[in-house]
Amino acid sequence: MEPQVHSMELLSRSSRYAENAIEEENPTLERLAEEGKKVTKLNIGDPARFFPTPRYMIDAYIKALNEGKTSYVEPEGIPELRDAVAARYKRMYNEDIDRQSIFITHGVSEALIFMNSMFIDPGDMAVIFKPYYSVCYTGFRVFGGEPILQGYQEDRNWDLDTDELDRKIKENIGAGRRVKYISITNPSNPTGMVLERKVMERIVDIANDNGLILISDEIYDEVIYNGAKFTSVSEIAGDVPHIIFNGASKDLDATGFRIGFVLVPGEDKASEEIRKKMSDYCSMRLCVNTPAQYAVAEGINNIKEHEREVSEFVKAIEERANFASKLINESEYMHVVPPGGAYYLLPKLDMSRLRIKDDREFVHKLLEEEQVLLTRGSGFGADGHVRLVALPTKEILEYSINKINEFCRKHSR
Amino acid sequence: MEPQVHSMELLSRSSRYAENAIEEENPTLERLAEEGKKVTKLNIGDPARFFPTPRYMIDAYIKALNEGKTSYVEPEGIPELRDAVAARYKRMYNEDIDRQSIFITHGVSEALIFMNSMFIDPGDMAVIFKPYYSVCYTGFRVFGGEPILQGYQEDRNWDLDTDELDRKIKENIGAGRRVKYISITNPSNPTGMVLERKVMERIVDIANDNGLILISDEIYDEVIYNGAKFTSVSEIAGDVPHIIFNGASKDLDATGFRIGFVLVPGEDKASEEIRKKMSDYCSMRLCVNTPAQYAVAEGINNIKEHEREVSEFVKAIEERANFASKLINESEYMHVVPPGGAYYLLPKLDMSRLRIKDDREFVHKLLEEEQVLLTRGSGFGADGHVRLVALPTKEILEYSINKINEFCRKHSR
Repeated sequence: MEPQVHSMELLSRSSRYAENAIEEENPTLERLAEEGKKVTKLNIGDPARFFPTPRYMIDAYIKALNEGKTSYVEPEGIPELRDAVAARYKRMYNEDIDRQSIFITHGVSEALIFMNSMFIDPGDMAVIFKPYYSVCYTGFRVFGGEPILQGYQEDRNWDLDTDELDRKIKENIGAGRRVKYISITNPSNPTGMVLERKVMERIVDIANDNGLILISDEIYDEVIYNGAKFTSVSEIAGDVPHIIFNGASKDLDATGFRIGFVLVPGEDKASEEIRKKMSDYCSMRLCVNTPAQYAVAEGINNIKEHEREVSEFVKAIEERANFASKLINESEYMHVVPPGGAYYLLPKLDMSRLRIKDDREFVHKLLEEEQVLLTRGSGFGADGHVRLVALPTKEILEYSINKINEFCRKHSR
Repeated sequence: MEPQVHSMELLSRSSRYAENAIEEENPTLERLAEEGKKVTKLNIGDPARFFPTPRYMIDAYIKALNEGKTSYVEPEGIPELRDAVAARYKRMYNEDIDRQSIFITHGVSEALIFMNSMFIDPGDMAVIFKPYYSVCYTGFRVFGGEPILQGYQEDRNWDLDTDELDRKIKENIGAGRRVKYISITNPSNPTGMVLERKVMERIVDIANDNGLILISDEIYDEVIYNGAKFTSVSEIAGDVPHIIFNGASKDLDATGFRIGFVLVPGEDKASEEIRKKMSDYCSMRLCVNTPAQYAVAEGINNIKEHEREVSEFVKAIEERANFASKLINESEYMHVVPPGGAYYLLPKLDMSRLRIKDDREFVHKLLEEEQVLLTRGSGFGADGHVRLVALPTKEILEYSINKINEFCRKHSR
């Protein structure tokens, strides 16, 4: 039999957006591993590789397994974990959220799929700030969404022109477009910038004025340093319908558990509708890993252990991020705005001094020639930048930045 | 501030399909629990509630946790698990599949999301056999897909009119529609029917003749009994591009681990394109629960332990399914075709004898009045049927079926 499938028409149009710049050098990584070459990886924000996941959470995980917690549980998550998340928001932000407003997901990634499927028909719009977390953009576009991109201003410490934002939204609504939500990632991945309260208040006003939902990814909300002050959308959104993403990967240092949280706290009709629909989406995949949910409930509830772990962790991150920022800013080939949260640095490359086409080529050649792996900035909407992760030790960071400088010298004009 | 969100326009059009009949009585369940009422649940196919997940897998899970396997891993899955799945297909079906053709997902549910996003633009079509597994239908429709539904014939032991199927496909292609894939669930959820090899060969021919991909969910491929003979699509597809779903939930009795497998074994250009795109989708959610992957690798590789567990498990299921089928067929209100695989029964209700509107009302009232929970057949495209799970003990099955009969008598015309 001659198979008849015509591969040109095989894939959906929207599937061309499915990608993640963070992982795209994996085939090269595999080849280099086969060649016996050791690679220094600064591409992925995986704290558990550098700071072991706290033992008290591992113990809780094992306890759940030994107690036979291995069957399906509630699609929205086990009550113990939903209650733990609610208590956390009361403790940290004095927010009264009940269990019914909290949903446990396969990481924030799954939350993004549900949200975009829930809100976006092809051609619908949403506001995405640039640089964005890769999947906030790609996960929106695979559902046929058309973004309103609003750039943070790098030369003003990643400040935001909110008047221009409001104008763009009104223009599109005026032209009959359906604009659904404003997406925030705070602290920012990939810049590490923490949004100032007054900027966020202006964003809330704009959302309210234009009838948009606020979606705020706050998964790094405990990884704050350098004197930055974090504000949760839950503290200021008031009556504006809002959705908050959080999870166990970053603050709790448990990336491989794949546990995300979605909060839909509003008492308005829209929030109620979103909660109902969120339950429907959760039910379609039955539930999230069962024993991991028990581990994360303990991770949150054991405040004493958590505080100890997270304060050491954040102190180490602050040192490493500042150390790396300083080294980068001593380089003649790049410049970075030092972060206030998360653990990413997004230096701008001085491309005019390099015989290299773009940041994609930069990352690929750096990996091939120096075995140092970064992520291209264009994967976050920041052409001419690279993202590096400040999780490894100072020695590894120094080694890597030296290698980047060597590489730049070799390819300088 | 008066919030401006207009809830009528809030949700996407396609999101109205997001639902899962299996879970839709959860709010009632919660209320009954608050009222202190005990419910007998035959709604969800969760073997781990009745047969503990094998201890040797729990031990492997704990070992992985103790070894610090808690960070992100490869988006497509750890090599150990992908190799274990490959070896399983070699052992069971003499299929040569390499690691690169295997992808680990958050259950088959996530695989369905990826596949539908990958293939379906709004208006694209796919063939779905009816009764279908709920999420094969809803997961397709939330991406805007328009189904070609082809009914199994209940009065012919769920046989399939393949000539009619071929005609329908050709009609739609002739009318300029883009028909993408044929979706098979074998053994069937919700009927427990095992497809005969000659029917499957005809389906392969039809897929080939019309240039369609075959997608086969074979997650119950070891739960076969009553003399039924299971054929994997991988044994007969030949050069026709095909995708196979499987996972740890059913054969390995580990539902709460949420581990699915996707196989894309073809050497043709279409399969290659699908593998590439599958990697892209996997990369967008970084990875699947890390320690659970090690547990499942051991679950598959420890053949001796697995064989012992699965043979006892399948023997118990056979007894329970036959016991329940016999009782159901003794009832004057319903009739069932006994299953050959999986653990579902889909009796047809004699609605003409009942003062009840439809199967949705039947399920809801049965729960309220008798505290026995089934799933409505219309959730699987089988109006006037109910699905029940033959996993509990004979005592519980007998109790439940007696309650159903009582309920029918109470509501008979």
